[in-house]
Amino acid sequence: MRPILTPLAQSLPSTVPFTGPEALQRRTDVPFLARVGANESGFGPSPKVIEAIAAAAGEVWMYGDPEIHDLKAALAAHLDIPSANLAVGEGIDGLHGLIARLITEPGDVAVTSLGAYPTFNYHVTGFGGRIVAVPYSGHHEDLGALVAAARRERAKVIYLSNPDNPMGTWWRATEIERFIADIPEETLILLDEAYCETAPAGTLPELDIARPNLIRTRTFSKAYGLAGMRVGYAIGEAGFIKAFDKVRNHFGVTRLSQAAAVAALADQAWLAQVVAKVAAGGERLHAIAAENGLASVPSATNFVAIDCGGDGDHAMRVLKALEARGVFVRKPMAPGLDRHIRISVGRPEELDVVARQLPLALRDAAQ
Amino acid sequence: MRPILTPLAQSLPSTVPFTGPEALQRRTDVPFLARVGANESGFGPSPKVIEAIAAAAGEVWMYGDPEIHDLKAALAAHLDIPSANLAVGEGIDGLHGLIARLITEPGDVAVTSLGAYPTFNYHVTGFGGRIVAVPYSGHHEDLGALVAAARRERAKVIYLSNPDNPMGTWWRATEIERFIADIPEETLILLDEAYCETAPAGTLPELDIARPNLIRTRTFSKAYGLAGMRVGYAIGEAGFIKAFDKVRNHFGVTRLSQAAAVAALADQAWLAQVVAKVAAGGERLHAIAAENGLASVPSATNFVAIDCGGDGDHAMRVLKALEARGVFVRKPMAPGLDRHIRISVGRPEELDVVARQLPLALRDAAQ
Repeated sequence: MRPILTPLAQSLPSTVPFTGPEALQRRTDVPFLARVGANESGFGPSPKVIEAIAAAAGEVWMYGDPEIHDLKAALAAHLDIPSANLAVGEGIDGLHGLIARLITEPGDVAVTSLGAYPTFNYHVTGFGGRIVAVPYSGHHEDLGALVAAARRERAKVIYLSNPDNPMGTWWRATEIERFIADIPEETLILLDEAYCETAPAGTLPELDIARPNLIRTRTFSKAYGLAGMRVGYAIGEAGFIKAFDKVRNHFGVTRLSQAAAVAALADQAWLAQVVAKVAAGGERLHAIAAENGLASVPSATNFVAIDCGGDGDHAMRVLKALEARGVFVRKPMAPGLDRHIRISVGRPEELDVVARQLPLALRDAAQ
Repeated sequence: MRPILTPLAQSLPSTVPFTGPEALQRRTDVPFLARVGANESGFGPSPKVIEAIAAAAGEVWMYGDPEIHDLKAALAAHLDIPSANLAVGEGIDGLHGLIARLITEPGDVAVTSLGAYPTFNYHVTGFGGRIVAVPYSGHHEDLGALVAAARRERAKVIYLSNPDNPMGTWWRATEIERFIADIPEETLILLDEAYCETAPAGTLPELDIARPNLIRTRTFSKAYGLAGMRVGYAIGEAGFIKAFDKVRNHFGVTRLSQAAAVAALADQAWLAQVVAKVAAGGERLHAIAAENGLASVPSATNFVAIDCGGDGDHAMRVLKALEARGVFVRKPMAPGLDRHIRISVGRPEELDVVARQLPLALRDAAQ
């Protein structure tokens, strides 16, 4: 007899929510020529980050600072807010898990968009919460319907990404501010700004660190090019931020991750040129779509959603054909969004591969 | 109004269980000349680990493999067990959190020793569990009393470290095997072998991957010198191991951490010479204790518990005096153990500092 898992744990599936490209390669033996599926930054981290990692490599016998003091101080200075309004965790995923744990009792409702970030749902259901998912309106998360659902369901938490993943769309700051004001104060607003660095001016509301029901999450995984280091941060009211200390894995952010993030934040010139390259690569992806007679969705992120011109099954065939041709992409699965594939802005040579293989994959998929 | 935390979350303190040496230094401005408080390995990681980290530093823009395939395969080969019997997490701390979550409902009992690893307690109480703590018998965890408590309390989980932390003592494999056999099969045995690499032959039971109620945890943080990388692993029956996939942060083990652990495992010659240095340094710490007229506890770990010759308050004064003199150590706090300070086996030059400062700290503490 195996020791009894909790009834909740028994009810959960054993799963790896995203299949990594490494796992795909182990199964297929096809090396990926373009790794453009996980919205990583193929432009890499700043050379100063690489130097910082190499310089600190001999120090890894020491635990990292559990207070994450230096990184929090650097972020506080960069954002011009107190450290007390910042929590750092093992990526936004790690922070989502902690937030879900802090606020979710079995049966509590979390409102999100149907097809939005699945790892948020994974964490909420992992603590017994119930997901209420609101369909997108076209390619956008539907702010009005989300507010209505939060009110109707007396939601414990509402999730919104701006810019959006997986479609890449965005709302302007004024619209987000109205959304925030419309959410009941007993509902936590989890505003995921993972793609904030590539968003056009006027997308991000001012930082409001006085509002007790607003937590914004950001990351070093995207434009800063540190996905593999697992450093995300949460910005919020000091009282809520302090609650992370109730439940976090205090030594969980590695020593090198802390050093890498400090170095990344300090090199804003690198960030600026990555953002410029992402903009150019995004234009190229729109052009590649158009060359193939496909529509693409305007994007404020480092990826572009391309409408494959058929239904969800067709888009999945295109994805599989791309995969077989050495191009790693992902796709939304929700009805209405699932006709798209999502291609990250890779390096120019990776986009060359996409340009070459997409028409062939479309042909494969049509057969 | 702040969104309501769960009643459980409200009941938990916001805390950092261990104050890191960095935080102590920020408060006191005294640089530590000997960092011998957290049982880190001052001998450092293998040079091949440092090379592997530097070589992979440019790849940190990619997420780590969420299946942690290569490290699990290397561990499986090293231990001669299937990968399906291994889970890897963000240090043993991270694994403890997942285990507590999988099995603990509010009110469930976890049995441990009074003064044993506090982070286990942190995670259990963090999920609403109740700690039943059994006093040590002398300097040893009391196997018989632990078994009795597990039976009496119908414990969900029982925690045992072998070798022990914070006292450094150990039981022989035959005694641990009897302990395991005596625990009811509905109680999970969490056997923490963080210090297994420095244990004398005959300390570790054979790996039993068929027993459904046994999970053993090990780490790269101690003898392998990778505390700052956060890589721990659990060995157990495949069905229980698979349950980690229900709740873990799938991308949580960083890309560099995976690469570093693979390189560390491959350099068993480095490990062997570290273990030899730890043995020599341990002897030196016993000698330093004796020179000061103090008793010390035989140790199977990379630290030595030294009896300061008075009560707990006295030992705390010695600790504070050492801290003021640039020596970072920690101490057990439980009654009966608290007369000791715990000094990690540092590099020879760090033990020189200890040898110089301990008599002065004892003098300070006596005043």
